[in-house]
Formats: sequence, structure tokens, C-alpha cells
Amino acid sequence: MKLTILGCYSATPRTFTNPTSQVLEIRNHHFLIDCGEGTQVQLRKYKVRFSRIKHIFISHLHGDHFFGLPGLISTFRLLGREDEMHIYGPKGIKNAITLLLKLGDSWTNFPLIFHELDMKEPELLFEDEKVSVSTVPLDHRVYTNGFVFREKPAPRTLNVEVAKKMGVDRSQFNNIKKGMDGVSPKGESIANAKLTLDPPKPKSYAFCSDTVYNESIVPIIKEVDALYHESTFLESEAHLCAKTKHSTAKQAAQIAKKAKVGELILGHYSTRYKSIELFRDEALEMFPNVALADDGKTFEI
Amino acid sequence: MKLTILGCYSATPRTFTNPTSQVLEIRNHHFLIDCGEGTQVQLRKYKVRFSRIKHIFISHLHGDHFFGLPGLISTFRLLGREDEMHIYGPKGIKNAITLLLKLGDSWTNFPLIFHELDMKEPELLFEDEKVSVSTVPLDHRVYTNGFVFREKPAPRTLNVEVAKKMGVDRSQFNNIKKGMDGVSPKGESIANAKLTLDPPKPKSYAFCSDTVYNESIVPIIKEVDALYHESTFLESEAHLCAKTKHSTAKQAAQIAKKAKVGELILGHYSTRYKSIELFRDEALEMFPNVALADDGKTFEI
Repeated sequence: MKLTILGCYSATPRTFTNPTSQVLEIRNHHFLIDCGEGTQVQLRKYKVRFSRIKHIFISHLHGDHFFGLPGLISTFRLLGREDEMHIYGPKGIKNAITLLLKLGDSWTNFPLIFHELDMKEPELLFEDEKVSVSTVPLDHRVYTNGFVFREKPAPRTLNVEVAKKMGVDRSQFNNIKKGMDGVSPKGESIANAKLTLDPPKPKSYAFCSDTVYNESIVPIIKEVDALYHESTFLESEAHLCAKTKHSTAKQAAQIAKKAKVGELILGHYSTRYKSIELFRDEALEMFPNVALADDGKTFEI
Repeated sequence: MKLTILGCYSATPRTFTNPTSQVLEIRNHHFLIDCGEGTQVQLRKYKVRFSRIKHIFISHLHGDHFFGLPGLISTFRLLGREDEMHIYGPKGIKNAITLLLKLGDSWTNFPLIFHELDMKEPELLFEDEKVSVSTVPLDHRVYTNGFVFREKPAPRTLNVEVAKKMGVDRSQFNNIKKGMDGVSPKGESIANAKLTLDPPKPKSYAFCSDTVYNESIVPIIKEVDALYHESTFLESEAHLCAKTKHSTAKQAAQIAKKAKVGELILGHYSTRYKSIELFRDEALEMFPNVALADDGKTFEI
């Protein structure tokens, strides 16, 4: 699983900092998460192939999380896209995007499928045989969801060496891959587990931005391998959290600790601070495994 | 009069090319013309003070000319703007912008005043004692206007040296500045023109993008000092003009020639060509004074 940060700063885009957007590569999917202004340029810069993106998840309808979406959709159109594009986001997103396309008389030549969200409870958005994506209801100034991406256990793989050693005939291999037991040359049953290897442990990633400190998300993101949690402020500005419904780095770390996640990735920094290292310093007081998102940075999860 | 090109490439924003936007400084106004995605970052890059912008003119509602507007308005809000902002653009622009602000529960704390356009004839949009701005109806795939910006003649300035020489008393100076004749020590009238200097010739600038070749604009932009005219294509792609309603560089030059403008500035280049110099080469066959717009370039008019 590979996470590419396209932008991770709060509020307005600037010359060297971009608003929220990231790409998660998971089991051959390229999921785009949020789409602030300039996301399409960041996708080009970091060489993410536009055609790989088939699902876009929008957390909430503040500009720094979705004002890049109309332009991205227009560019897909100009590039001659034909594949379906699925967009998951708060109720109202369909109306906004279709109005903008209509004003420009720029209907897409590919199916644009909106999945509008308004539930306050976690909801399964996407599932196939390899991954699932669900919402993490967040508490922000407008209706907001985080998302948790989970790999499903891969099938067990045949241990060819052991199978040959035990004299299992090649004709059984396909059935064993499907989970059936094997049969020895003497006609004795051999348990599937003996003939196959454990698949790698399925990985999981949770994206939680924007949100005030909110312990109710802990059970939903419990033990994910990596948690991206917003940290707009340092403790010195903690008094701004209640009004703006944002979190401090330390609060993000508290959530990470309570949820026992593998790694905490901080982001959505206010640009008022002179170094983002300060966010890590404060989070480390509470949780040991803290990484800093930055535009263009990638994480192998 | 100073023109700063923030972006002048057609279609999608890329790492090193930006969609249409420019700032015209004219008699202490900073007029923003079009606002493609990323315009606010370009404004920062080229150090245009956000607070100076009080009038934004949008030619048409294709994304590469206005998808930067919602983000720019949001940023004005975050910067604590209080001054009025006037937005001139095609009918529908108000609905689009207000819907996006409403979805984000992000109403501006400054008056946002929309002037929606739907006339097919030239229309005066703005006028004060120093400048006027009118539309130039263009022919594109959607309703589109160019804009012509004209300085008004400045008042004549007192020629102090001559006035003193002719013995005109200082007590008359204010009246002479207002246009009245002077009186000599002998009581003879002295014509105002003798006591004052010609003001500099008023300058004018026309912005015409996007448009198919359209001679009906010639009388409207007649003899402007500088004309920015789109040139999406070279002659080798002239066959695409009718369908896309764009122009070639040579067609832009034909318009410049017929309108007897001072200087032609080309822009809105398709990114399919390997050098924008090719646009100048083709335009020069038709018109002698051709400049190439490029992102970050400025023109003193």
C-alpha cells in the first residue's frame, strides 16, 4: 500500500504548499482522497497516471478539499476519458459539479457517478474481493467524513516445494489453491494449511481530516496500520480548536494512542508556524511513531 | 498601463503553464481578467497585492477561465477582506459561486457584488473619472465577452513657467487648472490652451479570448494601443477553428491589422506545439507588431 501526499496544508494554496489531496495505491486501485485547488497539477508533477483514478473520495465541501475537482473532471474530459468515474462526497456535491459543467456546456463523455453521503454512522462505500472503503464520521464545521481503507486477506498461496516433497500430484494444485485439502500418494488427506503459505497480513489506512478531537472515531479506526489525522494547530493555539473544529498535533496523537494505530501521519498544518517539525515534537510526547506528511512525500504502509 | 500575464495557455493547468488570467494596472485600478485554476497562487508568485483587486472580469464560464474564482474568493475571506468585490461575468456565475460558498457554509464577510451579463451588444460595465470598461461580444462555444479598457483624457496640467512669464498671478492657477482662461496684468484674456500642457494620450487595451475569427469586433476595438487576442492554433490546425470556435495566430493578426491596433499580444496557446515562437512567426506575416504573452511576463502599454 502506497500513499502519495499531493497536498497537506490547510486553507489557501500557496507557491510551495498545496491544499489537501492524496493518492492511495492499494491492491491495484488508485484512490484519490480530497481534491483541493491545483490537485491536477500535483498529479502531473508526481506522475500519477490520470487514467488510473476511478474513485474519488471527498471528505467535505470546504474549498481547500474540493475546489480542484471541477477542473480535474474537465481535464479527464479533454483527455478523452471513457471509463466510469465514481465520486463519493457530501450531499450537494453532485449539484455543484453538474452546475459548473452545465454552465460551460461541458458535459463529460464518460459516466460520472456520484455517491452522495449524509449518514452520521459509518457506511461502506466501496467493496470488491480485495479491498473495502468505509466512512469515518468526523466532527467539523460542515458535514465531514474520514475514510478507512482496508485490504482483505489475500488467498493462501501454494507452497510448491512442500507439496512436491509430500508427493502431491500437480493435478491437485488448483484445488489446493482454492482451499481444498490435498491427497498423498498413499491416499491420505493432507490439511490445506500444510500445503499453503500464510498470505501477508492485510493492511489498513485511515484518513481523518478535518475534525475536532473526537474520541468516537477510535473504535472505527482501531489498530489501522497508518492513520492520517489532521493537526492544524500546535498546543499554543489549542484555544482555536473549539471554534474552528480543528485539532492539535497532540490531540491527533491522543487519538492514535487510543486507537493503537501502527503509525500516525500528521498533516493539514496551519501555515502560521515556521516549521512543521514542531508538530512532530508535540505529537511524540503522546505517541511514539509519528511521521509528517509533506507535499510530494510518499509512505509505504 | 501595465499588464501582467498570470496564465495564457489553453485547456488544462500544467506544472509550468497556467490557464488564462491577467492583471491590468490602469490609473490606480488593478483589474483581474479571467481566473483559471491556480490564479491565486500566480497572484502570490508575481506579488500582486490581493487587497488591490476590486473588480474581476470573467470572459466566459469554461473552466480554464474561471475555476480559480471560488478559491480566490474563499482566500479573500480568510484574509479578512472587508472591501466590496465586483464580479462581472456571464449570467449564471452568481448562482455557481454562491452555491459553492453555501455548500462550505463559507459566506464572505465582505460584499460580493455580481454584475451578470447576457447582452449581445457592447455594454459599459464600469466607469469613473479616469477609466471605462466595456464588453466586446465574442463568438465562442458558450456566451463570451472580451473587454476593452480605456483611460479617459487626464486634465491639462498648468504650464507654470509660461504662466509666470506671461505675468499671470498665482491666484488664477486653480481656475486655469480647471480649464478657465487666464488674465494678463494688462487685463487681456489668455487662452487656457496657452497656459496648460497637453495631457498624455489616453491608453487603451482590449482582451479578446476565447473567440473564433470574428470581424464584427473590429469597430469595437479600433485603434486600441494593445490587443490581446487568442491564438489557440497555428494554420496547420486551422480546420479545428470552426468546431472549437478558436482562432489561429494569423487570424488574430488579421483582426489586429483591420482594427489598426498598436500592438498585438498573442496567447491561449494549445500545448500541442513545441514552441510558442511559431505563433509569432505566423502572425508576423500579416501584422508587424506582435508580442507573445507568457506566464509571468509583463507589458508596459
